Formats: sequence, structure tokens, C-alpha cells
Amino acid sequence: MIRLIHYRHGGRRQWGVVFGDAIVPLDGDYETTADVVTSGLQRARTLTSRQPSVPLGQVTLLSPVTPNQQFICQGINYASHVRESGMDPAQITFNTIFTKASSAICPADADIVRPARHTLLDYEIELGLVMARKVDRPVDVTMENLHEWFAGITIVNDVTARDVQLPQGQFYKGKSFRGFGPVGPYLVALEPHEWRRLLDLRMQLDVNGSTRQHAYCREMIYRPDETLSELSRLQDLGPGDLIATGTPGGCAARAPSKMVALLARVLMSERGKWAAFVRKGRRNGRYLKAGDTMSLSIRTDDGAIDLGQQRCRVVEATA
Amino acid sequence: MIRLIHYRHGGRRQWGVVFGDAIVPLDGDYETTADVVTSGLQRARTLTSRQPSVPLGQVTLLSPVTPNQQFICQGINYASHVRESGMDPAQITFNTIFTKASSAICPADADIVRPARHTLLDYEIELGLVMARKVDRPVDVTMENLHEWFAGITIVNDVTARDVQLPQGQFYKGKSFRGFGPVGPYLVALEPHEWRRLLDLRMQLDVNGSTRQHAYCREMIYRPDETLSELSRLQDLGPGDLIATGTPGGCAARAPSKMVALLARVLMSERGKWAAFVRKGRRNGRYLKAGDTMSLSIRTDDGAIDLGQQRCRVVEATA
Repeated sequence: MIRLIHYRHGGRRQWGVVFGDAIVPLDGDYETTADVVTSGLQRARTLTSRQPSVPLGQVTLLSPVTPNQQFICQGINYASHVRESGMDPAQITFNTIFTKASSAICPADADIVRPARHTLLDYEIELGLVMARKVDRPVDVTMENLHEWFAGITIVNDVTARDVQLPQGQFYKGKSFRGFGPVGPYLVALEPHEWRRLLDLRMQLDVNGSTRQHAYCREMIYRPDETLSELSRLQDLGPGDLIATGTPGGCAARAPSKMVALLARVLMSERGKWAAFVRKGRRNGRYLKAGDTMSLSIRTDDGAIDLGQQRCRVVEATA
Repeated sequence: MIRLIHYRHGGRRQWGVVFGDAIVPLDGDYETTADVVTSGLQRARTLTSRQPSVPLGQVTLLSPVTPNQQFICQGINYASHVRESGMDPAQITFNTIFTKASSAICPADADIVRPARHTLLDYEIELGLVMARKVDRPVDVTMENLHEWFAGITIVNDVTARDVQLPQGQFYKGKSFRGFGPVGPYLVALEPHEWRRLLDLRMQLDVNGSTRQHAYCREMIYRPDETLSELSRLQDLGPGDLIATGTPGGCAARAPSKMVALLARVLMSERGKWAAFVRKGRRNGRYLKAGDTMSLSIRTDDGAIDLGQQRCRVVEATA
């Protein structure tokens, strides 16, 4: 396992490998994640902590996934999130796929701006998979050969304006605002044997120090092998592209219960029902507000695989 | 107005300008639509029909929008399509935005493969807008300054597997199969005064010679100025990126309302209803089947602006 970091130092954009609190820079210019994954990873694996380094604290963090890459997401992929969204996990018969605009990608320590007119800002911790190679035809991926397809993993926060996503039924629009996709801090490139521990990873998201989401990746409904096999039958992917694998329960949003939804359908217009959803949401203290700090980590319980920590503060839009 | 064409000739990928049945090649290597829009258009405008040319019939057509570009779409943007989708145009209070995978892009004469397990294949003619420049902050676009933001226009067919899009509530997945996005034949670069005639363009889509869709662009609900102004507040766009502005009525699908579809996802007891939708659809002769030929054109009634003709045949997936 190496922890690849993308950063700015001395006015220059660079990639390096993290050893403790130090970064050993990687020689060469890699414009995109595709470039570093295809041409830089092999060299990165040869770097050691004995080489010249710069202190981690002296650099400006950048996202290890560059904004030229695709940002593909799975929806309702954990039973606990399916339930809080008002659905029955037994009835999830298809893999839900959507995208975020790649310009939503930001560093793992960025301030997240709440767009001026959108009040119901929510968080979603997700395991991100970074592609190693081009896929332009149907392929059969298994949990045993993940290392052939993926270069590494990273932490993703799929920040969402629920008052756009749910009332308008628009995943893309509600999830694509600039800064709605903190990614990193690192791109953790796993060794083949480490990929076998992927489902042992444990995700945790805290807001202001109190835990909101925690789950093991083994709880996901459609696993990475199934998802990439299916995506390969739909579309092309390239090295460096990002697949966010869905979030577990614990989000701020709580869909109306099945009974309430049924009643609303009979008694209220669609618009009336969603207006009520937004009004009720404004009284829900779990939605993010200015000054809140989210802290996200993903690691195995024994710490052998550790994706580091994201820490983002929520700020108001300036006029 | 010039008609920029992207083609392969003598084993080489090239760009050129169409004059009648001839192509005058554009000097220089332009890898992407972004490249040709930013560095080639000015030179393309100086080419004349008196220069050496190759016959249009001797080249292999390529899409004028390359697959590195964003493929952003507007949904339910014509009252006639809103109505056939089971909704009330007066209730359309927001601009519906989704994306297609860029690998869906194909040439304007490509065979469209119906994916093996998806039976309800539908067509959607749309006016495509191609960006001229980077947008990375909120901008205020008006119908009078479209030429400052857009490089040109093209024909888009937003091919859709309705049995994925509607029962699963998944725009991205139902619309992103490889080949589901014929674009072209040309990127028509308009002069500033021609942009003022944008809403006079008339779209027509025929299947096997009988007209299914025909409408003027002035019928669109959210116009290009409003749409780009809104998108600029959401995400970044770059030169060469494609915005498809929605389709008018006449599609094969007659859908239950979008809100009903949304509820169907919440109330999985509605699965039976969607099974019935697919069964009924299989008896609807308007859905595309192998051997059908779609013919698409967009032009002003006086022919002063003419985007050419798309002609795509539907074929079955091979095993």
C-alpha cells in the first residue's frame, strides 16, 4: 500500500508518496490522475522514506482525482441508507447509477460552500474506487481480480442539496454544485492481497465530533466487481475515473415513511408534499450549517489499510 | 455560418469545412472539439470553396463532439413532450438537467445497437449547443450574447432505453449506452447575427419516412440563455462541451408522470405497475426495432441555417 498525494508546493503542482508526516515527491509531470495512474504509480512504489522529503504540513492539498475524470456514483447501495430513504432493501433489484459534475471535486480539507438558496445540505461518506485502465467493452470483474481494474481507493463525501435532489427528482443537479465532492486526502494504491480486504474497510463520518455514519464496506448491496462489470456493458471508463460506491445510513435526510408517503400521495399535491418536506427539513438540526465541521475516515479495524482523514468546514455563500 | 466536419480520410482523423458536396480540410491537428473550437475555428472561417477539397462521399464521418467533452442534457423542456410524459407544462417550475456518458456519442450515420435485454428503445431529436469557452463562475447570458458563449450548434439524438429510464427512475443509465448519442453531422458555427435566429430553427425526426417529431426551437421552456446562466451557478463547463436542449413531443413512450415514477421508487409496491408499462410498451409499434431508420434534420424554414441530416439505422445486438 502506498499513499499517493497530489499537492501544491513552492508554486508547483506535484504528486508524491506520504511516509508519516513527510512527502517524498514523485519525479515527472503528471497533469491528470489518468497520467499518474498509468505512468507514475510504478515509480511511486519504488520511493522510500529515506529519500528527500517535504513536511506534509507545508503543502497545499489538492484532490488526488483531477477534474477531467468521470465522477460516477452508486445510489441507495447500503441497506441502512435504503431504509432511511423510505425503501425496503429487499426490493432493491437494480444498481442505481448517477454522476456528479467533475467540477464538484475539491480537496479533502476544503471549505464547503452552502449555495445561497439551498438549505438542506447533507453529507454522504463513500468509498471511492479509482480506475487503473481503460474499459471500452464488456468485462467480467471478480472480487479476486479487482487489482487488475482499479488503481486504488480514496474517501469521497457526496455532498448533496436535498431540497434540489428530492423535490425535483434530480440527482445530478442536487449533487453537482462546485465543492460538493471532497475527494482524498490520498489515493491509496493497494497491493493485490490488500484488495481482498476491501470489504473489511470501516467508514466513519462525524459532524462536530459526534458520529453520524459508520459502517463496514461489506454491507454494500452491489459490490465493486458487480458494479464495474455492469458499467462496462453501459459505457467507457478510463484510468483515473472515480466510482463512489454509495453511502450507509446516518444522513440528515429522512424520507417520509411508507405510510406517510402513501397518505401524502392521496391527500397532497406533489408540490405540496415536497414543500412540507423542505419546511420540515429546515427544523431538522442534522442538516449542515455554517461552521459545522465534517470529519471522515475509512480504515480497516487493525489500521493495516488507512485512507487518512477528510476534514471539511461548512461556510455560507458570500453575496 | 460554416459547417465544420470531423472525419477520417486516408487513415487520418481530420477536421474540415463543408462546401456543397466537398470538404476543404483544415490544416493542423485538433485532438478534441475543445481544441478545434479554441484554435481552429478562426482559420476555418477563412477557408473557401476554391481551395483543394475531398468529396464528402469519400470520407468516414466522425462526431463533431469528441468523447472527452461533457454531454449535458435538459429534460422535459418542450410543453408537447411534458404533456406526453403525463405532466402539466404549467407545473414545470425548474429546469431538469441530467447527463449522458460521453462514450454514448457516435457519428450521425452510425448504426444504433439496441442493447440485448432492453426492448423499449426511443428517439429524441434535440438542438445541441457547443460551448465556445470556459465557464467557471456565475455568468449572465442573454439571447443577445449567445455568440460570446457558444461556438455553434448541431443535431443530437438522445436515444433512450425507456425500460431502464422510467421503471428505475434512472436518466443516466437509460440514456448512456454506447451509441445512444448520435451527434452531427456538422458543428455549424454561426455568426453573431445568425444566433438571433436560433429559436426559428425547426426540428424534424422521421422513422422509416414518416414524421414522428416536428417543432420549432422557440417552443422550448428554458431557453439557452437561461440554461447556461443556471448551469454556470452549478458547475464548470469548457469549450467543446455539449448541451442538448430537450426534445419536443412525438416520442414512442407515453409515460406516467415523473413524480409518479419517483414515488414508484419509494413505493416498491409499484413494481407491478412498471412491469405492466414494459409489457404494454412491447406492443407499442412506435418503439424502435431492428431495421428502422431514423432521419433527423434541423433548419430554418428559409434554409438560411441548415444543420444537415442525421440518418441512423437500428440494429440488434449480436450475441
